[in-house]
Parts: sequence; C-alpha cells; structure tokens
Amino acid sequence: MSDIPLAIGIDFGGTSVKSGVLYRGNIIEEAPRIDTQNYEEAEPLIQELAQVISDLRKNHPTIKAIGVGMPGFVDFPTGLVHNLTNVEGWHRIPLKMRLEELTELPVTVENDANCMAYAEWKRGTGRGMKHLIAITLGTGVGGGIILDGKMIRGANSVAGELGQTTIDHQGPRGTYGNLGALEDYIGNREITKLALDTYASKGEPKSKEECSPEKITKAALLGEQTAIGIWEDVATKLASALMNCCWLLNPEAIIIGGGVAKAGSLLFAPLDHALRAQLSRPFKENLRILPARFGNEAGIVGAATLALEQAGFDVDDHY
Amino acid sequence: MSDIPLAIGIDFGGTSVKSGVLYRGNIIEEAPRIDTQNYEEAEPLIQELAQVISDLRKNHPTIKAIGVGMPGFVDFPTGLVHNLTNVEGWHRIPLKMRLEELTELPVTVENDANCMAYAEWKRGTGRGMKHLIAITLGTGVGGGIILDGKMIRGANSVAGELGQTTIDHQGPRGTYGNLGALEDYIGNREITKLALDTYASKGEPKSKEECSPEKITKAALLGEQTAIGIWEDVATKLASALMNCCWLLNPEAIIIGGGVAKAGSLLFAPLDHALRAQLSRPFKENLRILPARFGNEAGIVGAATLALEQAGFDVDDHY
Repeated sequence: MSDIPLAIGIDFGGTSVKSGVLYRGNIIEEAPRIDTQNYEEAEPLIQELAQVISDLRKNHPTIKAIGVGMPGFVDFPTGLVHNLTNVEGWHRIPLKMRLEELTELPVTVENDANCMAYAEWKRGTGRGMKHLIAITLGTGVGGGIILDGKMIRGANSVAGELGQTTIDHQGPRGTYGNLGALEDYIGNREITKLALDTYASKGEPKSKEECSPEKITKAALLGEQTAIGIWEDVATKLASALMNCCWLLNPEAIIIGGGVAKAGSLLFAPLDHALRAQLSRPFKENLRILPARFGNEAGIVGAATLALEQAGFDVDDHY
Repeated sequence: MSDIPLAIGIDFGGTSVKSGVLYRGNIIEEAPRIDTQNYEEAEPLIQELAQVISDLRKNHPTIKAIGVGMPGFVDFPTGLVHNLTNVEGWHRIPLKMRLEELTELPVTVENDANCMAYAEWKRGTGRGMKHLIAITLGTGVGGGIILDGKMIRGANSVAGELGQTTIDHQGPRGTYGNLGALEDYIGNREITKLALDTYASKGEPKSKEECSPEKITKAALLGEQTAIGIWEDVATKLASALMNCCWLLNPEAIIIGGGVAKAGSLLFAPLDHALRAQLSRPFKENLRILPARFGNEAGIVGAATLALEQAGFDVDDHY
C-alpha cells in the first residue's frame, strides 16, 4: 500500500466539517470533526482545516491530493467559493488557493452534491456508467449529472441543481426567487410539514416529532395507510422533477441517496411507477432507478476520489 | 468551389420533405418537395428520397454526405427511426442503412430539433459556444442541448425533448402520459386556445382565425393589452421550463427559434425578466437569451452540417 497514493476528502457541512483519508474507496482514518458554527469567518476555519490535514499526513505520508466538498456554489476551475448555504462569512473565498498555500498539495474544491454524484459514479452504484443523474434527498435536495462519461458543470460550473428545478410554475417562491422548486416540496422539513398537515386534515393530529421522515417510514412499514400515502405523495413530486431530467438528458440510471432515501421501497416503488408512466419507450426501456451505495461518507469519498483524478491518477483503474 | 465538399440536408416534416444542397452554411439549390402524406409506408418514400438525392447530385458532383432530420425519436448511431409524430408507417425503419444502400454515400439521421440546434451551434447564433440550449417553438416544442462543446444525446440518443418536460406536476396528461408538458401549454394550437379563452373571458370573443400566434403578435404590436398579456403568459410558462434547464445545465446561452419566436420582444422581454427572476447569480450573470438565426431552413442546414461532420470534415474550420 505504500506506493498507492492516498487522498484526503473533506465534507464541509453547515454543522460540522468531516475529514478522512481515502484508500481505494475506503475511509481508513477519520479526523476529529470541526464545528462549523464556531467560526464566524472563513480564514480561521481554513487554518484549522490545514491543521487537520497536517495531522492526517503524519500517519499517511503518501497522501497526494486533497478534495473538499462545499455546501454552495463553487467555481470549479479556480476553487473559488461563491457563497455557502447556512454558513456565515463565506463570500468569494479562494479556498483552493489558500489550502494549496498552506498544505503544498493539489487541492480540488467542488459542490457537495457533485461530490456525492462523483462517489456513486466512480466508487458506488454508478460505476462504469456513462449517463447518470445522482440526487441526494435531505434537508436540501442536491444533484449531480454525468453525461458521456463526464461530470456536467456548465458555463460557470454550477450545473446539477436539481433541487431548484420547478415542478409547478405557479408554486411558492423559493430561496432564489424560483417558483415551485422541488426542494420546497420534498426537503426534510417540507415532508414533516406535509405529514403534519395530512394527519391534521384526517382528524388525527400528530406532533412535529412524530412527523419526521424516519417516523413516517416506521409508521408506513407497520402498514399505516396515511404514512404510506405521504411517501406516495413525495414520490409523485420527485418523479415530476426526475422525468424532466429523463426527457432532457436520457440517462441510463438515476441514483438516489441522502437521508430521505432511507424510506426505501416506500419511496422507490411509487417513484418508479410514476416516472415510467410519464416517459415514452426509448427513455425508459433501459432506465434504472437505484439507491445510492454511500450514506454519510459520500462527501469524503467523492471529494477525495475527484481530487486524485484531478491530480492525474486513474481512479477507474487502480483505486 | 469544386474541391469543397457539399452535403445534402433533408428536412423531413409531417406535411412535406424538403431537400437542399448546402455550401458553407448556404442552401445553393433546393429540390422539389415531397408530399409526406402521399406515402402510407416508409419504403416508397425512401425510394423517392433516393431519386431526389440522385437528381441533386447531377448538378453537384462533389456532394459527400447526406443528413436527414426526422420528426421523431431516432437511434443516432444506427440511424434507426423508432417512430414519427404525425406520420403513418414509420416504425423501426433503418433509414440510414436503406439510404446508404441506395445512394452509396454516408448518411446521418438525427431528430429534427437536434438538427435545428446543430444549425444554430455550427452556423448560427451559437457559433463558438460550448454550452447552449436551443429550443424551437411551433406546433410542437423541441429542443437540442450542447454541453462542453458536444451535442448531448444520452443513453438511447433521444435527449433534448424540452417540450415534454413538465411545468406543472398536476397538469393535464400529454401524449406520452406526462403531466403538464410544456408543449401542451405553449404549442401553436395551445396559444390559440389560450387566446380564444382569454378574449372570451373578457367579453370580447374572437374567432380561431383571429387567435393565431401571428394575429396575436399583430394585435400586441398595435398596443392591445390583452394580446400583450397573452405573450406574457406564454413567456412565463416558457421561462419555467427554461429555468429548469439553467439550474440543471448552466448554459451560456438559450437560443429560441421556430414560428412562435417571431413574436420577438413581445415574447423575449417578459421571458428574459421571468427567467432571470428565478435564477441565482452564477446561473444568470453570463446567460444570454437569443433569437435563432435560421427559420425554416434550419433543418436542412443542420442536417447537412452534421452529416459533413460525421463524414469527417471539419465544419468549424472551413465551411
């Protein structure tokens, strides 16, 4: 293993920053987490990150690259972070440049949903595929797109924002002024709200605590019709946004991850049905709808894998 | 001009088939049209096409390739036509193979909206661009997508069907079972229906004839508020579908062609406004919304250009 290059993957979240060392798709050491909200500005947090990296390198001298997944818009070629969702003090921060100065290693900075997509494509469910859509369902809804064996980034490298696409041109106005954004229907909080409203309308009011996606899944698994219906509702809305991806991009697979995807077949079965009912044959005959391989570790795995590839290593072949 | 390879472009429509000879982006001869509806089966029409090609080649011996744009789903690598919208007798027809047998020239078969996108990208408004969406607005709504300097075709080469994407997950069920398809809101016939309803609801009923897109444009240009409002309504719906393309693909330009686009600034001004109001900064700061260069000739120009490129000629460089 000594001559196989390792990489550090950093998953920068709104609550904490997780860092780990990746060896052929496996996280072999994880560093203590950094509490994101302890830092009001970017620079001290970047310094702390450099310290974490330095500590990890003591145990793993063959580390060759560092990848960072960020919860916001990133200019991929320069590694400039435009701004972050839910984190103060990050506005036009040249993260790649600063970390390269501090660590003297090649650094790659990418959007977190793209890292998740990358993990699934190179190390997970999408391995070997050429055309795939990856979507992550949690508090937010993110996505990444691979076409013709290439990650799609677009003109300003911000492509893949599936959660911001609309399913209703007259829907409520979202974070960016967009009407009817998918994320505003099937984000974690919105699922809870949907459940609260549904139970209330049936004269069986429940608490917010009882309406978390996990609790609804448990109730549905026990056969409760209202809970099953809530997942069908979520699936129908998700199908609408995914059908747009299919008509536009004709992928061979859609890979679904994130906490909400833990509903499993409660979500996947009605989704599969609703999606296929809205596609013509050449769009659906080879289409696969698949659960993601990775859970919470997707960000570290994807960021580290991408960083190795950007540094010139063939991750398909050896790692 | 004798050593510059020419190509024949064929624009296969539901009403007629148009064929022309392309020289550096210009149609230098057009053949008599073939009436599509005179043929109940594919083979006799293919024979007639071969005759038209043979006639054109008598005047232009340097023709090196033939491109055909088809109104339906095509398997690009093999040139197999899955099926056509509005034309009988076309079901799994190996058009490329048959025409190559009959003409002994390389033949390329592509979806018509992709041909239009190709024309704009290689010879029109999108020249030199790397990431663009082309949309054509007429009886149907079609599209073509170029990303990273490559036409996007997807797993079964049927990508780009913008008209089938939804703008309302609870909308009416369309041709392929899809709910709320854009085409079912802003196709030619639907604009007329919208105008009929709008005028009727205002107590100023008009005839179907008076409600064609052309007539509404004329009324709007004369300052009639109802007509202006109809175009604003169409623009808002179109903006919704195009905003999805922007969030997903982050293009540098959206190029809009087809008969309905002749409404000009009546459509483009409210479209630009509604689209930008629903995008965050990195998605819109360099985004351009542009009218197509080509009108009815887009199909011939795109098909011929694509055919030349497929035959190994560098159309960016010389033609």
